[in-house]
Amino acid sequence: MKKLLLLAAILPAAAFAQTPDRAAELRDAALGDDVAWTIVEGLTTEVGPRMAATEAEARARDWAVTKLKALGFANVRIEPYSMQGWVRGEEKAEIVSPFPQKMVVTALGASASTGAKGITGEIVGFASVDALKAASPETVKGKIVFVWHRMAPTQNGSGYGMFGPVRWNAASIAAQKGAAAIVIRSVGTDHHRNPHAGMTTFTPGVKPIPAGALSIPDAENLERMLARGKPVTMHLTLTPQLTGAQQSGNVVAEVPGRDPTLPIILIGGHLDSWDLGTGAIDDAAGIAITTAAAKRILDAGQPLRTIRVVWFGAEEVGGFGGKAYQQAHASEAHALVGESDFGAGRVWQVTMNTGPDGQAVKTRIGAMLAPLGVVTSKEEAHAVTDVDPVADTGTGVLGMNQDGTRYFDLHHTPDDTLDKIDREELRQNVAAWTAALAVAAESREKLRVK
Amino acid sequence: MKKLLLLAAILPAAAFAQTPDRAAELRDAALGDDVAWTIVEGLTTEVGPRMAATEAEARARDWAVTKLKALGFANVRIEPYSMQGWVRGEEKAEIVSPFPQKMVVTALGASASTGAKGITGEIVGFASVDALKAASPETVKGKIVFVWHRMAPTQNGSGYGMFGPVRWNAASIAAQKGAAAIVIRSVGTDHHRNPHAGMTTFTPGVKPIPAGALSIPDAENLERMLARGKPVTMHLTLTPQLTGAQQSGNVVAEVPGRDPTLPIILIGGHLDSWDLGTGAIDDAAGIAITTAAAKRILDAGQPLRTIRVVWFGAEEVGGFGGKAYQQAHASEAHALVGESDFGAGRVWQVTMNTGPDGQAVKTRIGAMLAPLGVVTSKEEAHAVTDVDPVADTGTGVLGMNQDGTRYFDLHHTPDDTLDKIDREELRQNVAAWTAALAVAAESREKLRVK
Repeated sequence: MKKLLLLAAILPAAAFAQTPDRAAELRDAALGDDVAWTIVEGLTTEVGPRMAATEAEARARDWAVTKLKALGFANVRIEPYSMQGWVRGEEKAEIVSPFPQKMVVTALGASASTGAKGITGEIVGFASVDALKAASPETVKGKIVFVWHRMAPTQNGSGYGMFGPVRWNAASIAAQKGAAAIVIRSVGTDHHRNPHAGMTTFTPGVKPIPAGALSIPDAENLERMLARGKPVTMHLTLTPQLTGAQQSGNVVAEVPGRDPTLPIILIGGHLDSWDLGTGAIDDAAGIAITTAAAKRILDAGQPLRTIRVVWFGAEEVGGFGGKAYQQAHASEAHALVGESDFGAGRVWQVTMNTGPDGQAVKTRIGAMLAPLGVVTSKEEAHAVTDVDPVADTGTGVLGMNQDGTRYFDLHHTPDDTLDKIDREELRQNVAAWTAALAVAAESREKLRVK
Repeated sequence: MKKLLLLAAILPAAAFAQTPDRAAELRDAALGDDVAWTIVEGLTTEVGPRMAATEAEARARDWAVTKLKALGFANVRIEPYSMQGWVRGEEKAEIVSPFPQKMVVTALGASASTGAKGITGEIVGFASVDALKAASPETVKGKIVFVWHRMAPTQNGSGYGMFGPVRWNAASIAAQKGAAAIVIRSVGTDHHRNPHAGMTTFTPGVKPIPAGALSIPDAENLERMLARGKPVTMHLTLTPQLTGAQQSGNVVAEVPGRDPTLPIILIGGHLDSWDLGTGAIDDAAGIAITTAAAKRILDAGQPLRTIRVVWFGAEEVGGFGGKAYQQAHASEAHALVGESDFGAGRVWQVTMNTGPDGQAVKTRIGAMLAPLGVVTSKEEAHAVTDVDPVADTGTGVLGMNQDGTRYFDLHHTPDDTLDKIDREELRQNVAAWTAALAVAAESREKLRVK
């Protein structure tokens, strides 16, 4: 802690090569931003859930084009691509014996269907993915596997990496061992009767089985039932469907730079959402924050570099928008990429990868963010899903790390709604992104890592 | 505040007529109680939701008998009665235009059915019951009425009295004006996608209409849609059913007193619950707290007065258990009644109504509760639903007022589950009831008001 305070203290104003006063002015003005709120409020109210490759996502693209044009961005357009669709069906879980009662469940993405009549099976429980891995197929065969965990909140979201495999991998392992179906404790940190949706991945060659997530109170209840030592039987109905080839798309907008020969800055968030909530924190907030910041740069006069804002499609179901963007724009030079996709909590840390020339830019951005309470980290920046394919080509990466302490209370749940967003924290995000863009878009240094 | 502190200071130990040391010992030992937890944990896990006049409530009665006998209570029995049943069906709400999206809704008790195909209607919104009352029938006729409110948390639960009429009365008013249906903002204080169930009352002669409660985030979304000024259309499906005459019942247990000629003390909570949650705070907690306290008196040696513990049936849907109890026991002399039915938050205030002779008992109870942080109030005690019919015959009333700040976050929602209960707060409740019973059950004073 002391070390970081010293770091902030030894960054004199003289360290700035360009207009630090102007960047600071833009940053401070952004603390009064209303554009980001207008985007989140509008998208969650006027469109609502925006499942990838559905007509709702198409409505969201139309909404986006109208909004981005109204804000004055240049070159606003939809860049379509095709993908396979998947939609939720009926979802019910009920303990049949020994303690009959309903439970709240949602199908995971890639889940197979139980058929309309559902299936009944004995529950076999595991405290972790490792425990499931270690189980003999005989103990699992024909049963409904149940895997739980003890994910707890963390500021940096690292619990998701640790406990995410319960959602990502357990279904495929259970399928390989001959399970009839799987239900997991939702990968989340809340205690509400709202299950957490999300993708699960079946290893190629493994035939998908029905896979659902129980709300955390239900999962805890099921654990207590199993602890009593009697066989527990569940009736499970999940009827998701593959919808075949469907159109999705990215929505692109620009703040044209004074020097079009310079590699551009790519920022954004994702427009699609899971279907249970209205996608307020995931990720209307991210597109709102980055767009509001870009709008402030736009209104402040033409920046040196072009800033491209993308509202990516189909992130949740496999990052299709990000991959399509990279393929469509492979010939363009990108300097720096950054995405906001971790809610609407305040930015607490900035990470940045650049080559040697870009280090001074990182230092300037860190100094500009310090008055917002943002720590400059020496950790590596990790490109978020949608900008990762472009980052992989060797661009610099800007990571505005948001406080994720409560993010996994809401992530992929019906509870991801507008009321969860704190307007002042949203404004702090806009101010942080505005300040970073004000510095980076005026920089001539090479920002790419390679 | 100062006045209350003085009150505590001027109550010397010498004020006690009976064994204050023994009562204090029992109180302090109860801070380590596990019986109450075992009851809440067992009932929510092994039975779950316990809707009045259903087979689930019958299973709960069997569970209760087994549990109360195992705890060593005397005269454990079910006292059955008949009542009309009502069960939930399908429930769906969807905005059709201009902003298509699903909303989370639940039928209110006494709601009519829309039929399986549902109904579609334009929404007409009102900010309060008074605004609905003032509306001309022409503005409402054939439409789906939507009533919202601004209920906020209060420690004493007074927000329920203020905003409860949105649930209790608005449906009947809307029906009288010719509305096709009504949806209300759930009467609650949370921001989760969990609607709050509960009864609504149609005035005799008014034909019931379909009546649902939207979750609070959905109600806020609908308010925002209406604020945009375009007509908003909803498709609403609610298919509850009347199930005709069904059996319900109270479960009764006793701690027999040394002097059976003295009027008894009646305490308890209600065994039934709404069907969406597992009825942990409403009201497994109440029966657990009062039963655990009575168990401590039972184990401490026979009290002077008989304590009767009742796990009432069918409270939620009209207080049928309480009325049936009073009718069945009209010839018995009751001295004092008390019910715990406001969650599992700590007791912060004690209220007590007695005649003049009982004032000394109230003073002794207040002194015994002060070390638990409980304020002795001069306010009138209000008998809770189940014991109200007996209280109306002129008994004394003991009110152990629990902190209700978060109670209406959970009340009647799917979120009323075990994880919401803090074990230490539950124990404080048991200690408070144990102390009060230790004093009251040893008192010879007349406790009745008349």
